[in-house]
Amino acid sequence: MSKKIDRSKTQAKNYDSFARRHIGTSEETSLKMLNDLGFNSMDNFIQSIVPESIYSNKDLKIDGGLSEEAALRHIKKISKKNHLFKSYIGQGFYNSITPSPIQKNVFENPGWYTSYTPYQPEIAQGRLEALINYQTMVADLTGMEIANASLLDEPTAAAEAMTLTKRLSKSKSDVFLVDENCFSQTQHIIKTRAKPLGIEIKVLEAKNMLDQECFGAFLQYPDTNGVINNYSHLVEGLHKKKALAIFATDLLALTLLRPPGDYGADIVIGSSQRFGIPLGFGGPHAAFIATKDSYKRSLPGRIVGASIDAHGKTAYRLALQTREQHIRREKATSNICTSQALLAIMAGFYAVYHGPEGLKSIALRVHSYTVTLKEILEKNGIEIQSSSFFDTLVIHSGDKTKDFIKRAKVKKINLRIINKTSLGISMDESVSFEDLKEIVEIFCEDNELIVPNETLSSISMDVRRTSNYLTHSIFNSYHSETELMRYIKKLCNKDIALDTSMIPLGSCTMKLNSASEMEPVSWPEFSAIHPLAPTNQIEGYLKLVSELEQMLKVITGYSAISLQPNAGSQGEYAGLLAIDAYHKKNGENQRNICLIPRSAHGTNPASAQMVGLKVVPIECNKEGNISIKDLKEKIKLHKENLSAIMITYPSTHGVFESTIIEVCDIIHDAGGLVYIDGANLNAMVGICYPGAFGGDVSHLNLHKTFCIPHGGGGPGVGPIGVVDKLKDFIPGFHENPNNNIGPVSGSNYGSASILPISWMYIKMMGSKGLKKATESAILNANYIAYRLEGHYKVLYKGQNGLVAHECIIDVRSFKDSANIEVEDIAKRLIDYGFHAPTMSWPVAGTLMIEPTESESKDEIDRFCDAMINIKREIQDIENGDLDITDNMLKNAPHTAEEVSKDEWDHSYTRSRAAYPLEVLKENKFWPPIGRVNNVYGDKNLMCSCPSMDEF
Amino acid sequence: MSKKIDRSKTQAKNYDSFARRHIGTSEETSLKMLNDLGFNSMDNFIQSIVPESIYSNKDLKIDGGLSEEAALRHIKKISKKNHLFKSYIGQGFYNSITPSPIQKNVFENPGWYTSYTPYQPEIAQGRLEALINYQTMVADLTGMEIANASLLDEPTAAAEAMTLTKRLSKSKSDVFLVDENCFSQTQHIIKTRAKPLGIEIKVLEAKNMLDQECFGAFLQYPDTNGVINNYSHLVEGLHKKKALAIFATDLLALTLLRPPGDYGADIVIGSSQRFGIPLGFGGPHAAFIATKDSYKRSLPGRIVGASIDAHGKTAYRLALQTREQHIRREKATSNICTSQALLAIMAGFYAVYHGPEGLKSIALRVHSYTVTLKEILEKNGIEIQSSSFFDTLVIHSGDKTKDFIKRAKVKKINLRIINKTSLGISMDESVSFEDLKEIVEIFCEDNELIVPNETLSSISMDVRRTSNYLTHSIFNSYHSETELMRYIKKLCNKDIALDTSMIPLGSCTMKLNSASEMEPVSWPEFSAIHPLAPTNQIEGYLKLVSELEQMLKVITGYSAISLQPNAGSQGEYAGLLAIDAYHKKNGENQRNICLIPRSAHGTNPASAQMVGLKVVPIECNKEGNISIKDLKEKIKLHKENLSAIMITYPSTHGVFESTIIEVCDIIHDAGGLVYIDGANLNAMVGICYPGAFGGDVSHLNLHKTFCIPHGGGGPGVGPIGVVDKLKDFIPGFHENPNNNIGPVSGSNYGSASILPISWMYIKMMGSKGLKKATESAILNANYIAYRLEGHYKVLYKGQNGLVAHECIIDVRSFKDSANIEVEDIAKRLIDYGFHAPTMSWPVAGTLMIEPTESESKDEIDRFCDAMINIKREIQDIENGDLDITDNMLKNAPHTAEEVSKDEWDHSYTRSRAAYPLEVLKENKFWPPIGRVNNVYGDKNLMCSCPSMDEF
Repeated sequence: MSKKIDRSKTQAKNYDSFARRHIGTSEETSLKMLNDLGFNSMDNFIQSIVPESIYSNKDLKIDGGLSEEAALRHIKKISKKNHLFKSYIGQGFYNSITPSPIQKNVFENPGWYTSYTPYQPEIAQGRLEALINYQTMVADLTGMEIANASLLDEPTAAAEAMTLTKRLSKSKSDVFLVDENCFSQTQHIIKTRAKPLGIEIKVLEAKNMLDQECFGAFLQYPDTNGVINNYSHLVEGLHKKKALAIFATDLLALTLLRPPGDYGADIVIGSSQRFGIPLGFGGPHAAFIATKDSYKRSLPGRIVGASIDAHGKTAYRLALQTREQHIRREKATSNICTSQALLAIMAGFYAVYHGPEGLKSIALRVHSYTVTLKEILEKNGIEIQSSSFFDTLVIHSGDKTKDFIKRAKVKKINLRIINKTSLGISMDESVSFEDLKEIVEIFCEDNELIVPNETLSSISMDVRRTSNYLTHSIFNSYHSETELMRYIKKLCNKDIALDTSMIPLGSCTMKLNSASEMEPVSWPEFSAIHPLAPTNQIEGYLKLVSELEQMLKVITGYSAISLQPNAGSQGEYAGLLAIDAYHKKNGENQRNICLIPRSAHGTNPASAQMVGLKVVPIECNKEGNISIKDLKEKIKLHKENLSAIMITYPSTHGVFESTIIEVCDIIHDAGGLVYIDGANLNAMVGICYPGAFGGDVSHLNLHKTFCIPHGGGGPGVGPIGVVDKLKDFIPGFHENPNNNIGPVSGSNYGSASILPISWMYIKMMGSKGLKKATESAILNANYIAYRLEGHYKVLYKGQNGLVAHECIIDVRSFKDSANIEVEDIAKRLIDYGFHAPTMSWPVAGTLMIEPTESESKDEIDRFCDAMINIKREIQDIENGDLDITDNMLKNAPHTAEEVSKDEWDHSYTRSRAAYPLEVLKENKFWPPIGRVNNVYGDKNLMCSCPSMDEF
Repeated sequence: MSKKIDRSKTQAKNYDSFARRHIGTSEETSLKMLNDLGFNSMDNFIQSIVPESIYSNKDLKIDGGLSEEAALRHIKKISKKNHLFKSYIGQGFYNSITPSPIQKNVFENPGWYTSYTPYQPEIAQGRLEALINYQTMVADLTGMEIANASLLDEPTAAAEAMTLTKRLSKSKSDVFLVDENCFSQTQHIIKTRAKPLGIEIKVLEAKNMLDQECFGAFLQYPDTNGVINNYSHLVEGLHKKKALAIFATDLLALTLLRPPGDYGADIVIGSSQRFGIPLGFGGPHAAFIATKDSYKRSLPGRIVGASIDAHGKTAYRLALQTREQHIRREKATSNICTSQALLAIMAGFYAVYHGPEGLKSIALRVHSYTVTLKEILEKNGIEIQSSSFFDTLVIHSGDKTKDFIKRAKVKKINLRIINKTSLGISMDESVSFEDLKEIVEIFCEDNELIVPNETLSSISMDVRRTSNYLTHSIFNSYHSETELMRYIKKLCNKDIALDTSMIPLGSCTMKLNSASEMEPVSWPEFSAIHPLAPTNQIEGYLKLVSELEQMLKVITGYSAISLQPNAGSQGEYAGLLAIDAYHKKNGENQRNICLIPRSAHGTNPASAQMVGLKVVPIECNKEGNISIKDLKEKIKLHKENLSAIMITYPSTHGVFESTIIEVCDIIHDAGGLVYIDGANLNAMVGICYPGAFGGDVSHLNLHKTFCIPHGGGGPGVGPIGVVDKLKDFIPGFHENPNNNIGPVSGSNYGSASILPISWMYIKMMGSKGLKKATESAILNANYIAYRLEGHYKVLYKGQNGLVAHECIIDVRSFKDSANIEVEDIAKRLIDYGFHAPTMSWPVAGTLMIEPTESESKDEIDRFCDAMINIKREIQDIENGDLDITDNMLKNAPHTAEEVSKDEWDHSYTRSRAAYPLEVLKENKFWPPIGRVNNVYGDKNLMCSCPSMDEF
């Protein structure tokens, strides 16, 4: 008979509990901070902030509180339920080899994976250079003029290309043609996206396209069956109709094939997965999009450009930001607000490491093996449909199909099952000669393999590549591991990531991404699974997904979760699709009004317009809260047509609005649904439940609250939770007849391979740890407000003068008093070793600070010391002790080169510039460049690696 | 029928071969460099350097040239032949949990593992601080005044303690007493070491020790059976006899037990393995040694001390270097010339992360579980011998022993089998409540487990700890993962490692340690195996060892290899023991003369004296080569007694001496044997074979030629190869009746867990790659000599004016011409971003430069540009353009703080100080401190973390 004991009793004082590792402050320190704020217990404190009407004191029903060791053991067992078959399925997902130095020094290095989107370019030159390498690689290989820094996945990139085409095309048609031989998942996503926008999709053979009116046509090259067509004639015909030509393509194939740019393509998209990124059961992978220079201002997503800094030195930055959704709001044509930065960076390094010759040699090997396979199978009487191909064959297997599949299974090989009489095989760089022999053995006895050297025999002359690519020195310098390792480190050390110092970005929740959480992601049982692998090989993933869904249900109070959306914005889109579908099912097709407070994140209106909703803004009152009066008025105006309200909770102003229940009731009474944006969920876990207090749908950001690292700007995961009545409308590929919204990302579980991170976090924290994290995050934010009060004006407090998990400080008055703007303070913080808080959002001229629970009091104090000292510097300007145009803030950040120049012509000293606090002498981060010139960069747009002359 | 094809033909141009990744220069670039040197082919070039008499043109008989993927697949299969049982064997090796952030950010981070021994403290403050943390931890926990920066393993630390005791003790006795209850492997090593030195070992019960005369006594606390004795009385008695008391102990136990220092211990040794270092089948682990302050100048190994830099800032450095073997040569009492830096650093971080409270809580849990186990077994009628214990029980299992073992096996559990009627169990931090239940199930049905909270019930009052430990703020600040990660990164960024720039250290072969080579070391199948696991569980290791031995035989030309020695110096010692044993077996006991050229590494004479040999130096001629004349004279003098000659080949001067065959013949003719020091094997692989051209024994340095990383000063592996007639005399624990030299390190295969690194290297390079690496290493060295010639005097060239794989430049003349010494140049190189070459060895006033094959021409050119520019700076001093006392060389290195000071009072500009070459503006390494004051440090010795007041 066994008696279970309380684990906490066997682990004296829980000194090795994970919560203690994740949360930056000890119990003792927390108590001190509470005392400073005038509280004697955490409970009192929290209940002074969270409205009683929504506060819950119940324990989360979550097992866990496992040690790191125990959690890893547990998830290892889950991983073993996935079965590692060698995949030849292809269809946009290929085995690839991540070079070990990239795996270790990029993917497993917190210097890369914990960094934020490079909005502060002076501390982000490393990842910006890595991303411009990626853009150069994409532009070169596709033969296009400009590429962005990646999109979420290939199918959503296709959908983005379609909406971009709609905007660019001068054709009046609403028809968009889709090659029937493009990937199935791409067709699905295009259809989902087209529907609310009134675009008519026609799927047909490419050769019949010119018979149709259309505003654009979508082609796959090579196509889903591996066929390579010459599209010169087709593109010409489309252009004559004022239609645009979009190509989906494959970067590895393009090392040998004539690039789409040569055919006159207008937009080219695809996945860079096979450049060193694991299959990962479908994601995350970086999709690319490239276009003509003339379309650059319409290109969705982030674009890195080269500019100059204050000293005239080359400096990278995010270019053309006025295109982006957070600026264009309901006028946006895309809600893309992230990229797959980490994956794009890795793919870029893959190209840097192999170089043009290396990539070509890989492609030649892949092609030679494919040609060899075809020849030997044909020699043995097996009919191959393919004649012009790169890496993919279609085998007419006839009545032997079942038999072949069975034999493949014995060898732990997955083939693509096209139908009852055909099979597909796609080769990739991981295929060895031994692997090739194994494939042959499935089909025949003969095994006399001779692989030709560098054959191009199945690529006809007119589709072979003749142009150069990757000629820039970046792609021709780092081919030894030593050189690559140093290049990676050099870039990494230019950046501030969470391994350097606090990144107090409001609304971004830059918390610890622990090494234990990250570990399972690298295991082949998670990373080497093809998204189309048979169900009996993926039981581990299914268990992981179902456990994570269950935990997220408990945490949010919702009845169903979909993990498919692979970014927060995509969660918004999916959630609104669900709401729209619900109304339509109820016959209320007229409900097309979406109320959105003015304080909302710009993606909210952008997502609403993508679903075909009309955005009606709601005013905020003086305190920054939703104006109930305006809300009621707007509802009166739109009652019949009200679809939903989108609100963020706690608000984007960092406040637990006490009217939340009232707002939800008002909407529900009017027949509308409540979308609660989960961006700020980190302030609610274990304390209140959006699914319980009135929300009908929320998206969560696993890359905020649930520890998926930001990766320098992606990957993200944005699952949605819905109440019971909406559970038939969550997205997916499943053949669910009730599901009428379709899939929103290219694979069933979106960025599946990073879900272990969130699973690990929740399991290790357990119910107590999760609640404590929330409380600590709120305490830290209030402690910052407390320390900065008196130096800065803290805006938008909630009840009892307290904030939620972030606080906003107002620096607008310094413009008049000292000619200091919010940007000057942000850049000056770099001299103090800190990444700036969120700038001018949600209110222009303010800084929004979110410390998260992972920061220690020491670090928070260092940050507050810096902010207070900056205030003193501003006062010196106000007093006339510092020059109003030549001061440390205006000239920030200061590089080492600058402060050690022979001539010093500033009105302040070098030491004030570089070491404004004594502690910096012990540990100083030197920005590699001075302040970036944004205007110059947008005027002289350059989005590929600048040539050496440029430097 | 399958026809094997040439893999190279299927991999077009080998663009993804590992050799291309490992070797820094492409074929094309190599050819350019050869042309610069006046050669048109590599073969011509090499044959102009290597004496024809030893040059071999045959291919190495080594399979391989595997891709990284293929090699990893292959070694994965080998690893799976090891079976993962949970070990409760103990005996100095315990399961431990490496915290994930330490695993990822230290152990798997090239910034830590590729760094060199911190001889240049200005670019090594990170690892020096990490090591002084380790020393502080050891001194605190053992209750001693000073600890060193680690030794090779616990048993060799015991042997070092014995020889140290012999030196320190005022007793005339030659007897050394050893507690019969100390670990078996420790007893073995002590005996091996004692024999040549004429020390008599008596093994007996501790309680009988005072009946014996002795110069020292060795105690284990807790002992091999887990018993904790109060040794107050015994130590007092020993001291009365003028004998010293040595304790072997356990750091985790000491968090609860009265420390040896409290008993008056003179020396305390042990292993820090259980502080976060994996079992690794026996090694590498950092052993510690601590002693009284008064003995500090006799302490073997490296000691980190705090000093100040040129600006008065706290600065760490290696202290008291005059104690070391490379200075004392044949007067040395130890040949220790390395440490287990990487492992000590990890153990130190483990203590920093857990802190005193955390460590104590781990120890309490371990102890509570042990107490619980004892109680439940006793309750079920099983007799437990132990009454006073920390973590180890001896179970009187009687006639049920076999049955228990069988039941354990079913559960994949290894118990310690003491004899036919007793079993041992040692608990550790990895044991969970579920594990505890499993153990109980082996012995009885009852399973009603209740674990007491924080019991100390089996530790009697008089042996409980009352003193504090780890009170320094370093051990009380970094308990969250975020804080620890930042602390690790902060330290890492203070250092230059191979991920920053070239480390051109002559004789140290700082080549690439590739990520793929490192990967298998982290696999549990290699890392989680106990060294005393049954043979049928370790077949993977046995296969790995036998394959590696076979490959090393082929590479060296020897007949047998022993992988046991875990450092080069230990290889020397083992090799000389083999030679000595051989002579003795032949009845030639009188052969006790060891000839050693004056140019030899200091460990050579130190090792010789440890084996009881008398060192006779051989002069070198003007060209730096062995003087044949002097050799003949010395042999005439000592012919009857000649045991061996120790020579390094190519010579320590970096020359392929053409007389090598003649030297070997002369020695052999005189009945002596030839020991060829393999430090420079990187210049011979695939070209010539020490076992073929006259060597009888060599040690190899796997941490030089075979890619085991230097780890900031360890781990090393120093296997020996011997000719056929010596093969019965290689070291080991095996019960080989012919083996009469005993073991030289604490486990059978020394640092077994890092052997996969060398296996991977050899398998991936293959015969062609290995040869090419050698050739490239030689080419790079000659290219440097070529570029520096005309600026510096290149010393010691071989035939045709060419050097081997390293070159020596003479800077002695600058002392007179410009008051510049070699150290000034070394420190000035830091301002250029480079680690200095080897300074003043083998010739004072010179720099020895070894680029290895892994450096690219670009990097080598950058280094040469720096050297040439430094020469210009020296000329400026000579010309009077720079002040002779206040110049950039004398004041180097320059910190960022210094060059940005408000006042600049140097006679040269800031920009000349910081940016002497334009390229530095693109990528500058800033040393964290100025030049370290060595004299101050040795005068004011401080070997623990300095208190905050000190800063």
